[in-house]
Amino acid sequence: MSGQEKVRVSVLIHGRQYTITGTESPDHMKEVAGIVDEKMREINSINPNLNTETLAVLTAVNSIHEYMKLQEEYERILQELNRIKE
Amino acid sequence: MSGQEKVRVSVLIHGRQYTITGTESPDHMKEVAGIVDEKMREINSINPNLNTETLAVLTAVNSIHEYMKLQEEYERILQELNRIKE
Repeated sequence: MSGQEKVRVSVLIHGRQYTITGTESPDHMKEVAGIVDEKMREINSINPNLNTETLAVLTAVNSIHEYMKLQEEYERILQELNRIKE
Repeated sequence: MSGQEKVRVSVLIHGRQYTITGTESPDHMKEVAGIVDEKMREINSINPNLNTETLAVLTAVNSIHEYMKLQEEYERILQELNRIKE
């Protein structure tokens, strides 16, 4: 399969079926969906009164927050690597 | 402000007000909300018929996918750094 071929995968997230498309392997896409499902369950267990829309928005907020923390750490070690290589 | 103090910030994401809580600065939380809002707008422009719930779930899926890509790259350079340091 060519790396740029579009793949459609049906996944179950928070009890609903979604079709996601991407150029990654179906396994990767199912793993990503599983992480989102788990995060939504976690947030739901803390705030059981949230509707799915709010839950999904807060899950996205949480994911981007974690992305930014990882990016900071990534840039820190990249700088360290570049200093050593100089 | 102590690093663990809970902060509540009201943010506008895809035309709706959400209260998000965290231990980060309000500026960081608003930046995160702005990225989520932008991602939802991007996905909405490609698929204008999606409801907000689906849009938010797909935004979360996309965010986790990008997190996993960054994590792979992070682990790659971390290994390189550890090899050099040995």
